[in-house]
Amino acid sequence: MTSHAYYNQEIHGPYELMDIGELPLASGKTLHRCQLAVATFGQLNAAKDNAILIPTWYSGTSKIIQDVFIGAGRAIDPDKYFIIVVNQLGNGLSSSPHNTQGPQARGHFPKIAIADDVSAQHRLVTEHFGLTQLALVMGGSMGAQQAYEWAVRYPSMVQRLAAIAGTARTSAVNQVISDAIVHGLRADPQFNGGGYASSTAVSAGLEQHARLMTLHGLSPEFFEGQHYKALGFDSVAGFVEGFMTPYFAPMDPNALISMLEKWRGADVSHVTAGNLQAALGRITARTVVLPITQDQYFPPSACQAEARLIAGATCKAIDSPFGHLGLFGADAHWLQQVDAELKVLLR
Amino acid sequence: MTSHAYYNQEIHGPYELMDIGELPLASGKTLHRCQLAVATFGQLNAAKDNAILIPTWYSGTSKIIQDVFIGAGRAIDPDKYFIIVVNQLGNGLSSSPHNTQGPQARGHFPKIAIADDVSAQHRLVTEHFGLTQLALVMGGSMGAQQAYEWAVRYPSMVQRLAAIAGTARTSAVNQVISDAIVHGLRADPQFNGGGYASSTAVSAGLEQHARLMTLHGLSPEFFEGQHYKALGFDSVAGFVEGFMTPYFAPMDPNALISMLEKWRGADVSHVTAGNLQAALGRITARTVVLPITQDQYFPPSACQAEARLIAGATCKAIDSPFGHLGLFGADAHWLQQVDAELKVLLR
Repeated sequence: MTSHAYYNQEIHGPYELMDIGELPLASGKTLHRCQLAVATFGQLNAAKDNAILIPTWYSGTSKIIQDVFIGAGRAIDPDKYFIIVVNQLGNGLSSSPHNTQGPQARGHFPKIAIADDVSAQHRLVTEHFGLTQLALVMGGSMGAQQAYEWAVRYPSMVQRLAAIAGTARTSAVNQVISDAIVHGLRADPQFNGGGYASSTAVSAGLEQHARLMTLHGLSPEFFEGQHYKALGFDSVAGFVEGFMTPYFAPMDPNALISMLEKWRGADVSHVTAGNLQAALGRITARTVVLPITQDQYFPPSACQAEARLIAGATCKAIDSPFGHLGLFGADAHWLQQVDAELKVLLR
Repeated sequence: MTSHAYYNQEIHGPYELMDIGELPLASGKTLHRCQLAVATFGQLNAAKDNAILIPTWYSGTSKIIQDVFIGAGRAIDPDKYFIIVVNQLGNGLSSSPHNTQGPQARGHFPKIAIADDVSAQHRLVTEHFGLTQLALVMGGSMGAQQAYEWAVRYPSMVQRLAAIAGTARTSAVNQVISDAIVHGLRADPQFNGGGYASSTAVSAGLEQHARLMTLHGLSPEFFEGQHYKALGFDSVAGFVEGFMTPYFAPMDPNALISMLEKWRGADVSHVTAGNLQAALGRITARTVVLPITQDQYFPPSACQAEARLIAGATCKAIDSPFGHLGLFGADAHWLQQVDAELKVLLR
């Protein structure tokens, strides 16, 4: 794989690149020489029944999953569990536009579906780790979408499911948001159909991306209550310029678009001809659905509506003025409650 | 003035173009040969004390103001009042980028402030109509911003003030929204610094504009409750493609940017060195502030906070699932309540 100033072990490691081989995609195409970047924590026990799988969310990597969720004494405890954090395809660490060579490189990277991530992860956990069950599959946002897909596709393997701040099917409004964010990247004249010389050349597109993530990723309460001050910024403009813009600036626009288009099409009911009730009815995992009260992407009502279609699922909205970006873990109160819910689920 | 397929009397008339002359702008520049497009309804009485001034909102014209608010038996009744609807500068009918000749044409149109509109309107009502008082200045959204500016700058002239779905100072979050929408227009390669051959060439930018207006102009409840069905659309995508996109498609990107930048900088406290309390404390008008409960641009809390700084003002949030675009008047229940509040104010 090619070196990159942002997508590397120094910033996001340690992780291991695992060969998945030729991956048939939902689109009908094949992703050649698929690789997953995988970070593991803890030890697999002899019974092989203590594995937890955590796929990543949009623009995040295994690093932020580790930072936010994993630790001794936490619910996701490496002293008890074998924790497998898998970077989603297209996120810059696993097979992605910038690290793929040949005819699928960069702007020609094939369109990936949530189901493709789950296919690749299924190979990883069954063939590489030799697992037949997962004690828990959990994730936030697009990670929740992958977790839902796991529980629908492989119900007998998934013993527990935790879907945090995400839905099993992307809403029509989120599709418009995705279109708007993708447009903001593609419209940059420097984008050049994905063939830009350097991702930093697409800075105007990435700045627009940061603006739109600011507007939808946080919450009205975050701004009105000036919660950005707790992060060290004295104004909204300062927060956008000092946090959101530099956070996304080093990322690869082709990678972001790959994930955005994946998000846009996410729908577990692809396996049941569009019948969401039938798809979610396949889930046998003990399920907890944990929306964030002020989440503008995945409002609690949308999460609750899906939870009602899952046998025995509980849904508990947890408050955070950070909205969707509560996932970043800056709100300790939110994180404590999520941890408590995960501990109950794992008990 | 130049002819335009959208900004004309056939679509938005009847209105009269009134010469305001050289208009000194807040920026220090001068708008040459300023013209206001003005529609009037009803008759000025002998005492000249029955005039109502209504400036327009973003992207709207005198036509929609007439359609939504004016009618016999309504609060804004042409049988009782002399109603002056003034198209804001840059809206395509009054002096605007596309209808200005010479060095201020198109992409060189000078930056306009809300205060400039009020200066131009003050000349209109005092010099052209010979008025010394206005029974009511009212407006929605950017029209509310102009109404606030009137009541702060000319307190002795404004007897009543009705601010609907708007604030006296643009919030920091709305500035980010404005930046995002402007970027979406400017980033279109066809925009060409405002020198595009035809506004329809900027269709990709205008489509992005429609997406962002969809996301912020309506409300989560509008989508979740499928209120677009009441407008004849069976899906969110259908609503975006069938209503929002064609609604904005014929508009002039330079005009939209002129209004967006004006909105971005709106702040009545320019006259009091940034002290909002002092600025709103100047208002002597009998004031009613009417936010829309689900408005994402101007949440009731923001409107209420300003109302508290105005002596004797009442603030009443009125519910509409249409959010900010409740202003379009499609929600008859919302409109009836606004009418009732305006009748109380005018009693």
